[in-house]
Amino acid sequence: MKIVVDGYGGDKAPYEIVKGCVMAINEIDDLNIVITGKQKELNECLNKLNYSGDRIEIVNANTVISCDEENPAKLIRSMPDSSIVVALDILNKRNDIDALISAGSTGAILSGGILKVGRIKGVSRPGLAPSLPTKISNKSVLLIDCGANADCKPINLCHFAIMGSVYYSSMYDVEKPRVALLNVGVEEAKGNILTKDTFQMLKKMPINFVGNVEARDCLSGDYDVLVTDGFSGNLILKSIEGTISFILDNLKETIKSSFFSKLGYLFMRKSFNKLKNSLDYKQYGGSQFLGCKKPIFKAHGNSDAISILITIKQAVRVANKNTNDKIEKIISSLNIEASDLE
Amino acid sequence: MKIVVDGYGGDKAPYEIVKGCVMAINEIDDLNIVITGKQKELNECLNKLNYSGDRIEIVNANTVISCDEENPAKLIRSMPDSSIVVALDILNKRNDIDALISAGSTGAILSGGILKVGRIKGVSRPGLAPSLPTKISNKSVLLIDCGANADCKPINLCHFAIMGSVYYSSMYDVEKPRVALLNVGVEEAKGNILTKDTFQMLKKMPINFVGNVEARDCLSGDYDVLVTDGFSGNLILKSIEGTISFILDNLKETIKSSFFSKLGYLFMRKSFNKLKNSLDYKQYGGSQFLGCKKPIFKAHGNSDAISILITIKQAVRVANKNTNDKIEKIISSLNIEASDLE
Repeated sequence: MKIVVDGYGGDKAPYEIVKGCVMAINEIDDLNIVITGKQKELNECLNKLNYSGDRIEIVNANTVISCDEENPAKLIRSMPDSSIVVALDILNKRNDIDALISAGSTGAILSGGILKVGRIKGVSRPGLAPSLPTKISNKSVLLIDCGANADCKPINLCHFAIMGSVYYSSMYDVEKPRVALLNVGVEEAKGNILTKDTFQMLKKMPINFVGNVEARDCLSGDYDVLVTDGFSGNLILKSIEGTISFILDNLKETIKSSFFSKLGYLFMRKSFNKLKNSLDYKQYGGSQFLGCKKPIFKAHGNSDAISILITIKQAVRVANKNTNDKIEKIISSLNIEASDLE
Repeated sequence: MKIVVDGYGGDKAPYEIVKGCVMAINEIDDLNIVITGKQKELNECLNKLNYSGDRIEIVNANTVISCDEENPAKLIRSMPDSSIVVALDILNKRNDIDALISAGSTGAILSGGILKVGRIKGVSRPGLAPSLPTKISNKSVLLIDCGANADCKPINLCHFAIMGSVYYSSMYDVEKPRVALLNVGVEEAKGNILTKDTFQMLKKMPINFVGNVEARDCLSGDYDVLVTDGFSGNLILKSIEGTISFILDNLKETIKSSFFSKLGYLFMRKSFNKLKNSLDYKQYGGSQFLGCKKPIFKAHGNSDAISILITIKQAVRVANKNTNDKIEKIISSLNIEASDLE
């Protein structure tokens, strides 16, 4: 198993990225990693981490696509020597590479994934799929798409559903993941034109489709995969993030508001930290950009070594289980009208 | 000032509804209220509350539209003797009635508002607009539309923006409310077809349009009015609700998890209750269904007397400030192409 990691993606690159790679190498026996980026600096990181083995290979890349630019596709073309483009080229061209991880610009990863690596045969649109915490401890829910496709057609959402289902099954050993359509009501007739049409189409898909789910139940733990267009998914994802931050800020104020609260906090500190951790996205790994020919993972922009390690483990698991082959097989077996794909 | 209240809307009807009305009568000098519903039961409530004045009038209605049915428009037509339809008829037909409040079925209120009361001249679509808490204490943000229109055109969102701006200005004495478009990125070019087109149109509207806002910043307090289509707004609203419930459940578990946490909780109980209250939607009043000829308010389904009182105060304020006249004046002054309205 060999994966390529963008050494210069994310706020804490390159040191925390390299550290996460070294941790993964130490934990996973048959793993090899290629790291892209400024060779000299990356080697310095490895020295600092006392790593001198031969399971990490550095491939030089002189520049960095630093943040979410307006036109990522243009950047992908104009910056062939950036750490993400070099990593994508390696993923695409080298047969020994099984997956890619980057904590860099989401736009660059999405555009680059399609331009450089391409889609799984039959997949109309790849979708970005993060895992979110749920009320059930240690159970996460997959949200797809959450930003790759702002305007979608029903067939796109059906493909998201199939890819999400196969991925969830691989990741968590769930035989028939419960796939739900994100909507404004649970009744079949509810929704906008897109969700109404998608509902009818999802009923015919070879998945365990359990109907509509309202946004208030996203984190209930009753569902495994939530299907939506990239615009709505992005709103949901960021609204959950924003609300968590709103409440944690509020909680801080509450604690500071009186002597007794501060005293109480001293007793509760450990439990509070546990709570804060359980709400921390990074613990749930990166988002897979599902539907590209080889697995591509977007780690959080502020990933530290631990979250890079978690994302590497995800990638290894997905690659080991031949998730992409399964997706291709199911999608090729569908009886889709050509007009649905237009 | 006279308002009509649906005595049988909501989980706690009729007693808490009637109690809220009596509280409002006692607090607001020149207020009169008409309550619709089963006359005998409503009178019993008034007796229980020791109210014997002449500022509350009961109008009999024998049935109740109980929950969000599949086809509310059909119900509005087939149940003319329901408490909500009787209230809507009173609002529509009686010149002495200034506004309506119901904690009943949202679908029935939205359909009934349009069918029975009609739109303000020039308004393409009315929109449901709840107020949400923000990080800034005592400052709320208005989200419009959050469920009345699942599929929207740019002109609808422009009308939401104008109505939201006028309403916010009336409610909170803010001269130029900061109006933002809910989107997946702050840059002008971000979004789906609807938001990209709407952005360009909003720039020309007579409002203080400050650009796009991401869902993670909805509750930041930096904005006064958030404009979106009804599908997205509903997702956002319910996702905030769901996340608050997710975290409060988590917090409960955290408190129960150890002896020290339980001890700490004893010291923090008061502050925790304050936190819980600040996250309680009901404190922020009802949602106005903005754009109907007379003000219509949807109170929360589980409204108690206090939240009915808060919603009555909102309605009185909006009616006193001639909010609807201002909306009509601005919308009639717009230079809109006929093709935009198609």
